[in-house]
Amino acid sequence: MEIMKVIDDLVCTRSVRQLEGISLRVMEDQKGKLWCASDPVGVGQGKWVVTTSGSAARWAMPSFSSTTDLTIVGIIDDWEKQKKEIDG
Amino acid sequence: MEIMKVIDDLVCTRSVRQLEGISLRVMEDQKGKLWCASDPVGVGQGKWVVTTSGSAARWAMPSFSSTTDLTIVGIIDDWEKQKKEIDG
Amino acid sequence: MEIMKVIDDLVCTRSVRQLEGISLRVMEDQKGKLWCASDPVGVGQGKWVVTTSGSAARWAMPSFSSTTDLTIVGIIDDWEKQKKEIDG
Amino acid sequence: MEIMKVIDDLVCTRSVRQLEGISLRVMEDQKGKLWCASDPVGVGQGKWVVTTSGSAARWAMPSFSSTTDLTIVGIIDDWEKQKKEIDG
Amino acid sequence: MEIMKVIDDLVCTRSVRQLEGISLRVMEDQKGKLWCASDPVGVGQGKWVVTTSGSAARWAMPSFSSTTDLTIVGIIDDWEKQKKEIDG
Repeated sequence: MEIMKVIDDLVCTRSVRQLEGISLRVMEDQKGKLWCASDPVGVGQGKWVVTTSGSAARWAMPSFSSTTDLTIVGIIDDWEKQKKEIDG
Repeated sequence: MEIMKVIDDLVCTRSVRQLEGISLRVMEDQKGKLWCASDPVGVGQGKWVVTTSGSAARWAMPSFSSTTDLTIVGIIDDWEKQKKEIDG
Repeated sequence: MEIMKVIDDLVCTRSVRQLEGISLRVMEDQKGKLWCASDPVGVGQGKWVVTTSGSAARWAMPSFSSTTDLTIVGIIDDWEKQKKEIDG
Repeated sequence: MEIMKVIDDLVCTRSVRQLEGISLRVMEDQKGKLWCASDPVGVGQGKWVVTTSGSAARWAMPSFSSTTDLTIVGIIDDWEKQKKEIDG
Repeated sequence: MEIMKVIDDLVCTRSVRQLEGISLRVMEDQKGKLWCASDPVGVGQGKWVVTTSGSAARWAMPSFSSTTDLTIVGIIDDWEKQKKEIDG
């Protein structure tokens, strides 16, 4: 799993039906690259979260039929503080 | 999922039968690398889209038997504007 | 899917039984990195092709029991010309 | 599988139910990038371990329903010594 | 599939039960990065091999229940010579 930051919402004007009604977020990984994740948890902008990828991303959704490959699975409250301690 | 741009169509003169009749697009990711994606949505050149990878790419196709590993799952209308706001 | 070039054949002197009798090719991706792909299409050296990865690579083979994770799924006749037009 | 180092515990204040009760660790790969892994073995900080990714990460957990994509599967006691010998 | 070199054996002092009794090897990819692969073929140090990843890595093992994501599937006898010819 990766540690990413929620940057913004993402709105698709048209999508495959398996993504309809699913909350999408713009995510930033630790190198600053942007991704799109499905969010079954309901996370606000600026929060640090744990994401899972691959088929696990579908298992983490309420319905396995969603066609995501990246899903937010947990919120980390104190990541910036913890990261500073890790970096020493 | 990744945020990519549709660059062009891609035509295979010969393919495995599981890709016959499927629309393929040349895609560019955020670092400028080119990819090939299957397109069940029908997206024109120059559009920004969300793509899904792995087994989810097959689930996003009308038939699961297609052998794609990258599928366009949604169109983002205002990505360039949104990206500018994110980059601040 | 990725756009790669067929460089050479690859011969394994010993392999797991699930790869016996399968044509293997040395592939080069767009960054010059070499890979090994299974080839159910029958492609000559120097050709540009589309490859699929992950479990889709097995679905693209005549037998799903082959243990490949990268399979040639289509031949692109005019990629070098098309790439020049894309690069402008 | 990758060879990674256990850096710290990771606590999620909220998570999807499929991760509840699962021990999470902050991991560092050989390039210094941080990851989050599920730990069914019970490994202390500073230990070098082997991790598996993708669907294998779920198979390595007591319950396949956990939505991890990275799991600790073994402890290496003498990695730093062995790595020195490899680097010559 | 990737072309990698067998560098050394890898011994885990403790592991999940799905890896018990499985031969593990330290591998080096073409960029010098180290990996851990399961070896159902029985390959000596210094040999060049083909590896498969993802769920195919489990299919290549005698038992699908092993939790590997990287498995040696074939031995290449003349890779260094062939590589020189490719590099021209």
